Amino acid sequence: MIRISGFHAVESILINRPDLIIKLFISRSEDKRGIKIKTLAINKEINFEFIDSKKIDQVSGHSKHQGFLAEINNPSFLSEKDINPRLKDLSLSKVLILDSVQDPRNLGACLRSALAFEFDAVIINKDGSSPINEYVFKTSVGAILNLSIFYVTNLSRSIIMLKEIGYWVIGLDGNADGSIFSEKFSAKTAVVLGSEGSGIRKLVKENCDHLIKIPISNKVESLNISVAAGIMLYELNKQHIA
Amino acid sequence: MIRISGFHAVESILINRPDLIIKLFISRSEDKRGIKIKTLAINKEINFEFIDSKKIDQVSGHSKHQGFLAEINNPSFLSEKDINPRLKDLSLSKVLILDSVQDPRNLGACLRSALAFEFDAVIINKDGSSPINEYVFKTSVGAILNLSIFYVTNLSRSIIMLKEIGYWVIGLDGNADGSIFSEKFSAKTAVVLGSEGSGIRKLVKENCDHLIKIPISNKVESLNISVAAGIMLYELNKQHIA
Repeated sequence: MIRISGFHAVESILINRPDLIIKLFISRSEDKRGIKIKTLAINKEINFEFIDSKKIDQVSGHSKHQGFLAEINNPSFLSEKDINPRLKDLSLSKVLILDSVQDPRNLGACLRSALAFEFDAVIINKDGSSPINEYVFKTSVGAILNLSIFYVTNLSRSIIMLKEIGYWVIGLDGNADGSIFSEKFSAKTAVVLGSEGSGIRKLVKENCDHLIKIPISNKVESLNISVAAGIMLYELNKQHIA
Repeated sequence: MIRISGFHAVESILINRPDLIIKLFISRSEDKRGIKIKTLAINKEINFEFIDSKKIDQVSGHSKHQGFLAEINNPSFLSEKDINPRLKDLSLSKVLILDSVQDPRNLGACLRSALAFEFDAVIINKDGSSPINEYVFKTSVGAILNLSIFYVTNLSRSIIMLKEIGYWVIGLDGNADGSIFSEKFSAKTAVVLGSEGSGIRKLVKENCDHLIKIPISNKVESLNISVAAGIMLYELNKQHIA
C-alpha cells in the first residue's frame, strides 16, 4: 500500500487509476480544489471520508497533504518474462534501465522524464533500488501510473534479453571514452544509468554494448543523476523524432 | 551562517574555501574519511573540535552528517552593479538566470549543472528564491563555491543590462512556439528558467528576446525544473563547444 497526498497527486490517481484507491480522505470540500477532488471522486464512484486536517497529518505522517490523502494499492509492475512479448515487435523504441537508484526523489524525477520523452519501458532492479513509495510517486508527478515499469531481479539478464530482440544498449559512465555529442542512437536503444554514488555496477556495465559520457567541466565530479538521465533521454528522443 | 555537514560537503569547503569556516566539528578521526578531513584541516590550518556524534545531531538538527559538521560564513555574492564590469568583455559567454526557484534541492541541482556546463554566471532574484542554505549547498555539491553568483533585486533590470552588453536572452516556457530542437544559440546567451509551479513571471518573460520550449509528451505537464535546466545548459554548452 502507498499513501499518496497532495492535490495534484490525488487528482492524478483519481483520473488515471481510480481502481487502485483503497481509501480516500478529504479535509476540505468547499473551495475550488476541494470541490474538484470531491466531484472527481463522485464521478469515478470512489467513496471518500471527510476527516479533520489534523487526522490527515497523523495518517500521512506530515502536514504537506493540502487536505487530500489516498491510500492506494501498489500498481502492478511488469516482470522479466514480459520483456520479450512487450518489446520484441517494436521497430522504433526507447528503454530506460535504472541500476540501483536509491534516492526516491531522483527515481521519481527519472520516471517523470521517461514519460515526458516517450519511453516505452523503464527497467528497474528490484533489490538495491528505492522502493516505489510516496516520494517517488510525488516526484514522478504520477508518471508511474502511465509508464510500463519492469521490476527485475537480474539487470544483466534483462540487458541480454533486450539485445536478443534488437536493442543497442548504451551505458552512461563518467569515465567513458565515447561522448553523447557524437552518439548516433539506434532505432531500438536502451540507456543504462547507475546509482548516485557509484554509477553502473561492473557486471551490468560489461553487458552494455557501448559506454558514453556527458562532457562536463573538471570542476564538477558528476551531474545529479536525474539531470544526467534527463539529458540522455532528451537527446535520444530528439534523435528519434528528427 | 550556513551549517554544512557530511563528508563530501565538508571536504569541499576545506579544499575550496577554508577561509569561510567559522567552526569545524568532527566525531570520527580513526577511519579513512576521518583521517582525510583531519589531515585537510591541519594542512589548511583550520582548528577543529572532536565532539560526540550525538552532539553533532543536536547542532545540525539531523543525523545525516556522517560525523562532520562545519559552520561557515555565507560566501559573498555579486550584485547587479557587478554585471557590467564582469561580463561586458566576454565574447563567448553563457549566463543562467533563475526566476524564483523555491525548492532548495532544485536550486542546488541547477547550480551544480551551471558549473558542470561552464556557465560564467548565475543570476538569482534575492526575494522569492530559496535562500542559499545547507540543502542548496549539499545538492550543489559545493558548486556555489566555484560559481559567480549574482544576487539581484530586479531580474528584469538585470536582463536589460545583459542585452545592452550583447547577450541574447532566451526564456524556457512550456507554451512557447519556438523549440530547443531548432534553436541556434548566440555566442553570448543568457537562459531564463522560472519557478516550479508557475514558470517565468510575466514581466521577466516580456523582457526575454525569445521563448522556447523543450518538446515533451502531452501525458506530462512539465519536466522537473532542475532537469529542464540541465537540458538547456547542456544544449547551449554543446553548441558553444562544437
